[in-house]
Amino acid sequence: MTGPIIAGWAHTRFGKLEEPDVEVLMAQVSVAAMAHAGIAPGDVDGIFVGVFNAGFSRQSFEAAQVALAVPELAYTPAVRLENACATGSAALYGALDFVASGRGRIALVIGAEKMTATPTAEVGDILLAASYRRETMDVDGGFAGLFATIAAGYFRRYGDRSQELAMIAAKNHANGIANPFAQMRKDLGFEFCNTVSERNPHVAAPLRRTDCSLISDGAAAMIVAAPEVARDMQRAIGFRARVHINDHLALSRRDPTTFAGAQRAWTTALASAAMTLDDLHLVETHDCFTIAELLEYEAMGLAAPGEGYRVIRDGVVNKDGRLPINPSGGLKAKGHPIGATGVSQHVMACLQLMDEAGDMQIAGATTAGVFNMGGAAVANYVSLLERIA
Amino acid sequence: MTGPIIAGWAHTRFGKLEEPDVEVLMAQVSVAAMAHAGIAPGDVDGIFVGVFNAGFSRQSFEAAQVALAVPELAYTPAVRLENACATGSAALYGALDFVASGRGRIALVIGAEKMTATPTAEVGDILLAASYRRETMDVDGGFAGLFATIAAGYFRRYGDRSQELAMIAAKNHANGIANPFAQMRKDLGFEFCNTVSERNPHVAAPLRRTDCSLISDGAAAMIVAAPEVARDMQRAIGFRARVHINDHLALSRRDPTTFAGAQRAWTTALASAAMTLDDLHLVETHDCFTIAELLEYEAMGLAAPGEGYRVIRDGVVNKDGRLPINPSGGLKAKGHPIGATGVSQHVMACLQLMDEAGDMQIAGATTAGVFNMGGAAVANYVSLLERIA
Repeated sequence: MTGPIIAGWAHTRFGKLEEPDVEVLMAQVSVAAMAHAGIAPGDVDGIFVGVFNAGFSRQSFEAAQVALAVPELAYTPAVRLENACATGSAALYGALDFVASGRGRIALVIGAEKMTATPTAEVGDILLAASYRRETMDVDGGFAGLFATIAAGYFRRYGDRSQELAMIAAKNHANGIANPFAQMRKDLGFEFCNTVSERNPHVAAPLRRTDCSLISDGAAAMIVAAPEVARDMQRAIGFRARVHINDHLALSRRDPTTFAGAQRAWTTALASAAMTLDDLHLVETHDCFTIAELLEYEAMGLAAPGEGYRVIRDGVVNKDGRLPINPSGGLKAKGHPIGATGVSQHVMACLQLMDEAGDMQIAGATTAGVFNMGGAAVANYVSLLERIA
Repeated sequence: MTGPIIAGWAHTRFGKLEEPDVEVLMAQVSVAAMAHAGIAPGDVDGIFVGVFNAGFSRQSFEAAQVALAVPELAYTPAVRLENACATGSAALYGALDFVASGRGRIALVIGAEKMTATPTAEVGDILLAASYRRETMDVDGGFAGLFATIAAGYFRRYGDRSQELAMIAAKNHANGIANPFAQMRKDLGFEFCNTVSERNPHVAAPLRRTDCSLISDGAAAMIVAAPEVARDMQRAIGFRARVHINDHLALSRRDPTTFAGAQRAWTTALASAAMTLDDLHLVETHDCFTIAELLEYEAMGLAAPGEGYRVIRDGVVNKDGRLPINPSGGLKAKGHPIGATGVSQHVMACLQLMDEAGDMQIAGATTAGVFNMGGAAVANYVSLLERIA
């Protein structure tokens, strides 16, 4: 392993938080991540911030805000990256490039978002900034409406899979109970998720409330280090592969019932690591909506197109299955503070690989996959992680 | 020279353009930059986009929009970077890291902004997103108000330099006549710039309209290539140094009459390149306001604190002076489409180094400096460029 490694991390609880803005959220995880990696602010050569914003706050230039809480970081170069819901991974990959290029030896990566201060209707509109508005201006229900269109198209082609979507929701909520950072820690159960009710209405048919991830506040951070620095550190998670591949933003230009870009990213990452899915002990995947997790089963190669439903039916992806998917509870239970999500997914995987995941722990996990996407599988990031030290 | 090089570029005219949005602006320069470097879309391994946005458009996720015009780029990884008014340089440096890290061999960098579709009062408010709003919410006149405060503080300390600011404006406007991409190509003259009049009112005293750069639309792009690829290319501009250093976002935490972060960036860059200012044939610097250019004379080491006025008085930085500064006309004459500016500055320097700057040409220029900043010298980028092929 010669590339940069992850040497420490931090994570706030996700949910409707008292912290008023990303400035405060970023401060919390910055300080905690440096402490976790056993480094001082003076060791940090670069700061990489992932915040989507796009209207959540009138304050932009978020990278420059990190030093407000840690004045020793004032002169440290800081930059913000954005890639819709993959904004967190964008920041992480920017930091990895920075360290791999030799421009710095240690980087601080932060993903954060404050969403709950914005009225819900406005949140829906802001999130559509991550779709191609020219196409989606008439879609009702914001991003849920967009994924409802995808689900409806998939159902028309392959049959109604509402039951399996409910099974995915139930799995992730059951897993989320064990996650101290999760917004929802309640076992909703299959029946509740599968039943349209006053408490579980259609948000955008066929997607019910339990098919959608939550509007959240939160932040996560990581310390990335060059391998020669990493030797002195207590924790080291390396990348067997990291791949970023895009796909058409305009859904009219592609088949929206298949995540082709995600599939390319998975195939490329596995080939580059000389691994198969059998070599992975768990995957954290981007379940902004349950239909997304279903399509990702197919994209990662667990099932042929249209057969993703078998994966959840067979229990393969349960916590005790052959390849546990989202043992953290995923975005579904954790919440989905846009800029934080990609960093959070990597933190969840690192916890597992360090055997520090508490009640979420998959016994003996030494390798993990992470899939984070921006838009409807437009910006696709696949990381294959393994424990080094 | 072993680092990545700049192998081609493109630049729209800056100004109030007919192009309705950044999607169209980015398309124009993407296609033109690839043609200029003699590469095909299939050669591009990564796309790095600099757009500030922060409210100019309800469409975000700008990186994913590049492939709308060039479908062959649909699967190419694309990401957006933001660092206030240094957003263009942020994108460029991200691309340089990407190539230097070995993750790709050729990257397309695009900086763009569409500002004139937004009402002027709103533009002022949007730009304050690049200041620390908690401090600047009571500042009248937007960013001009912020720099007026800086100018007023500087004048209190070192004497009124309004005349010298007018000389800077006049120099840059005179230079801008020769720039086919500039928004304003008119020699306003010192008297006009130095006289408060109906046509040149105080925007925020002591800054007059001629002390401020313009609200603009525009885009610029570059092709960055690994050195082994560059050998096959017609043009190659290398980096003797590239340095990014931040400073406090909160102006209350520092002396706003000196650009300490900019000074650090210049000192570090020159030391790392083993160069002095005498080794540079020209500098493109960030004159969002004339007071900024004055402070940058001091930051780059042309004058001691408070003595910057001598630099413009002595004619050192005129086009025929010892170190021509902003031979392109700078932001003052060119316009300042936020996300495009940093890329544009590098393009202007590259044109000079390739002896392709037309009427802007500084004869025999083989080295150039570029200074681009986000906020009031908060994110500071210094590039020292030289012609390789």
